[in-house]
Formats: sequence, C-alpha cells, structure tokens
Amino acid sequence: MLKHKQQYFLGIDGGGSKCKAVVVSDDNVILGTGISGPGNPLHGFEQATGSIIASALLAIEDSGLKGIALNDVIVGVGLAGVNLPVLFDQMSAWQHPFKQLFLATDLFIACLGAHQGGDGAVMITGTGSCGFSYVDGHQFIIGAHGFPHGDKGSGAWFGLQAAKHVLLSIDGILAPTIMTHRLLQVLNCKDDLALVEVIAGKSATFYAQLANLVFDAAEQGDEVANNIVDEGASYINHMAKTLLSRNVPRMSMIGGLTPRLKPWLSEEVRSKLSEPLSPPEIGSVLFAREQLALSI
Amino acid sequence: MLKHKQQYFLGIDGGGSKCKAVVVSDDNVILGTGISGPGNPLHGFEQATGSIIASALLAIEDSGLKGIALNDVIVGVGLAGVNLPVLFDQMSAWQHPFKQLFLATDLFIACLGAHQGGDGAVMITGTGSCGFSYVDGHQFIIGAHGFPHGDKGSGAWFGLQAAKHVLLSIDGILAPTIMTHRLLQVLNCKDDLALVEVIAGKSATFYAQLANLVFDAAEQGDEVANNIVDEGASYINHMAKTLLSRNVPRMSMIGGLTPRLKPWLSEEVRSKLSEPLSPPEIGSVLFAREQLALSI
Repeated sequence: MLKHKQQYFLGIDGGGSKCKAVVVSDDNVILGTGISGPGNPLHGFEQATGSIIASALLAIEDSGLKGIALNDVIVGVGLAGVNLPVLFDQMSAWQHPFKQLFLATDLFIACLGAHQGGDGAVMITGTGSCGFSYVDGHQFIIGAHGFPHGDKGSGAWFGLQAAKHVLLSIDGILAPTIMTHRLLQVLNCKDDLALVEVIAGKSATFYAQLANLVFDAAEQGDEVANNIVDEGASYINHMAKTLLSRNVPRMSMIGGLTPRLKPWLSEEVRSKLSEPLSPPEIGSVLFAREQLALSI
Repeated sequence: MLKHKQQYFLGIDGGGSKCKAVVVSDDNVILGTGISGPGNPLHGFEQATGSIIASALLAIEDSGLKGIALNDVIVGVGLAGVNLPVLFDQMSAWQHPFKQLFLATDLFIACLGAHQGGDGAVMITGTGSCGFSYVDGHQFIIGAHGFPHGDKGSGAWFGLQAAKHVLLSIDGILAPTIMTHRLLQVLNCKDDLALVEVIAGKSATFYAQLANLVFDAAEQGDEVANNIVDEGASYINHMAKTLLSRNVPRMSMIGGLTPRLKPWLSEEVRSKLSEPLSPPEIGSVLFAREQLALSI
C-alpha cells in the first residue's frame, strides 16, 4: 500500500528589517528555521520576494529534510505593508515558486500565532507600532501609520522624540538632561553639528535603536524622558482600550520594545495582557492551513 | 588705449528644491537669471554640481551677453547643506568650470543679501527653518536641523503636524476638525488607508505643501490648527529673540512661509523685522566680491 506523502507547510513572517521562515510537520512542530533580509514590499518588490525565497530555502536546509523543493511546499506568508491594497495586489500577482501561497498581513498572522488561531488582539511595539484584533471573522487595525508621521509609542517614535529634544536643547529652548548626554554619547557626537550630520536622513530602524536610552534615562529620573515615555505609553494604553472594547477574548503584546514599554502601561491594561502562544510565523502556517481547508 | 575687459560675476543660491543664478554687472545690476534643479549636496554631489552649472548657463543665456564662457566668470555660491563640514569639503574639492568659485552656506549669503553685505540676521522659514546672524565677522546658526527631527516652525513641520493629527483622529484619539477634512480633501483621500498610502515615505517638500491648509484652518477658528500654528510661531519667536540678543543691527525674515507665519509672531518680534534689501543670490555676488578683494 502506498504511503500518503507528507505535505510540508512553511510559515513566513516578513517585516521591515527581516524575513523569518519556519518549516513545520503535520502537527506544527518546527523542523527548521531561516532568516533573511527585509520582507516589506513597500521598500521594493524584488527585495521582498527575494527575502521570502531566501528564508524559505534556509528553513528547508535547516530542517535537514531531503528532496523537498519549493514547489512541494504550501506557504503562509504574513507581510508588513500589504494592508495597503496596491501592495497586496502586487504581491498577489507574484509568480511565486511554491506549490501554493496564501498571503495575509503581518498583523493578522501575528494575531493568529499569539492566540493559536483563535480570536483575539495583538499590540505590536517594535520599530513601529500598531494594534490588531480578529473577532468573529472581522479584522480591525489601529495605528500602523508609519514613520515619521505615525507609529506613536514605537521604538522609532521614542528615538525621534529623544533626538528632537536634544536639538531643541542645542537651540537653547530646553535644558539638557541625562537623556541629552546619553544620546550624544551613544551616537559618538561631540557637538550639535556632528549630531545633525549623523541623524540626517535616517530611517525608522536607526531611531528605534535609540529607544532604550529614553527608557534608561526615564528610569534614572530624567523628567523629560519620563514625559516622553508617558506620552508613548498613553497612546498604547488608548490602543489597548480600543482593542478591548471590541470584545477580544485574549490580548497579547509583542515586538522588540515590549519588555521596556509594558511596565509603563496602566495597571488595568497590563492585567489584560496574556503571553503569546506562538510566534507570527506559526500564525502564517495556521493561516495557510485554514485557507487550504476553505479552498478544498 | 585698450579698454579693461569687464569682469562678470555670477551669484548662485542652491537650496533643496532649486538652484537660482544671477549674472550681474559691475554695479550688481542683474543682467540675467537662471533656475535649475536641487542644489543641496546632501542629496547628491552630481546633482548639486549639475544644477549649479545648469543655472549658471541659463543665467548667462538669459543675459544676452555674447562670448562669455563659464571660465570667464567669478562665482559666489551659497549652498544648503555645506554647514556640514563633510559636504563643505566635498564641494570645495569640486573641479568646477568657473574662473573662480567662492563657497558659503545658503544662510550666510541670504544674510549678506538681506542687509546688502552689512551685519545682521535672517530667519528663513520655507520648507525648512533656521536662523542666522553675522556680526563683527562672527557667524551664528540656530535651528537648521532638518526634517523630520528638527526644522520646527517650517512648512514641512506644519504639514507633518497636520498629518499626525489626522492619523490620531483616525485612531479615535483626537476629534476631527476643519483641518482634518481639508487635509483628506487636498490629498484626495477617501479614508485612512488611502492617506497612509499617500504619505508613506514622503519628503519635507511634500509636507511643506500642506502648511497652507494648517494656517487656513487656524484662521477659520480650528482650535487644533491654532495650537499647531502657535507652537510653530513660538519656536520662531524664540529664534528671533536669540538672534536679537546677539546685537544684530538689522533682522529680516525670508522664505516661502514668511507671509503666512509673520502675522502669528509676537508684536515685539514683528516690530524688529526689516524687509530684505536683496535676494540671497545677490548675497552670493557680494560674498564673491568680498572674498576676491581679500585674496588680492
């Protein structure tokens, strides 16, 4: 009797700085992982699709599975940027090398992962910030507006506030504080001209690296840093309340800034947060399985 | 008896969006003008030098002077960006096609132009914002920090504040106002997603085009717009006081946002403002003549 050949699934989480892939077994055990470059198609279709393929190949290689080609696997892909219709359409039209590909936003797959495919909400605070809920088949987004105009309470936002404060202190409008000195030190700048040169034209990723020093300064009693952290936390509190008002059974907070930001949120919001059950790339797998079941 | 051949001077003002050139007679009467593309070397050395040459050729052509080549003229060039030492050095090393070239910052030549070569101060509020004074041979700069981290009170800053407010009103944190509706209308956006798509990755120049609607809304009684204008004006008031404290005999305000912003400044500051006597490109000519005299 012929044994039914196992169908492998790949889950991919493509963000602005990197693309993560996992290859999983039938019961969603991770067999291999791969990480490649940026996966957000807002910064280029070629780069995004290249990163997806690279991370997939690395994950298959890492799994040690032999004789598996890209056109053998079914892929769930969660991508930053595809909440914009133009980018969703562009990525959907991609002549990809996989057996099948199911595309969703990075927010949706993060939410599916955090609640193991169940209804719930996630707040993502990393380089950017946003909130997402999925209840009874309805998706809802708050924030996710981008840098420098939006993404309040994100790493990039905190870093930008710090840089703005230092520049205003250079202008003599605000007094320098612990944070001011720390920022000039971290960026290895002796004076204001050096600072202006270093930060000219920098991206969200650059500013996000400065977020920690704002929290450090705030925790050391720097009042200006404290006000910045309070303002950012207050936006995330608002985001949490908006999401909770949508009757989410479960809510998680994820992203690189989470450990720093969480202690500054209101007691009420913190008491409503649960740990994420799985990472976003597993959410991509859950999404692909669900879509496949619907399509059969 | 051989007539001494006339020495023509070119004055150039190179900013982030365009490069303006004038060719003048011995007594600084403008004989021809030329306008080309961006002249700020921060956005590329090739583009800046290309724009300088193009504007110079256009000005010579416009003057109708025959038989004048680039290597016949002495050029004063004021450039945005060259307050950064790395860019000043790069531009100074340029193997330019002129007889002689004298390089200064756009701020210095704007100040020399505004006060016909005399001591004084200028505040420049256009796409960006900055203040500059020149007294007893000493230059002083305030602001000029760039977008999005600095340039408070500039066109780009006003536009960015408007966009931020609209995004927060989309998040349900702030109430929409006259300004909110106007901005969505101006950008031809039906909803928040469309807005996020339109403003993604946009430059200072884009945001500066939104500044007028903030002033329009403020003048129609929009309280949020009013607060934004007050905050920007308050920064420019501070800039003015800092410059006035340096014993400047004369102070002018120039740049595209000046007509909108001036009425919002304090009475005290407005009473200290004088009209600029000449445009920045004439300041470049005055600078070149002065440097030439010093070098002989």
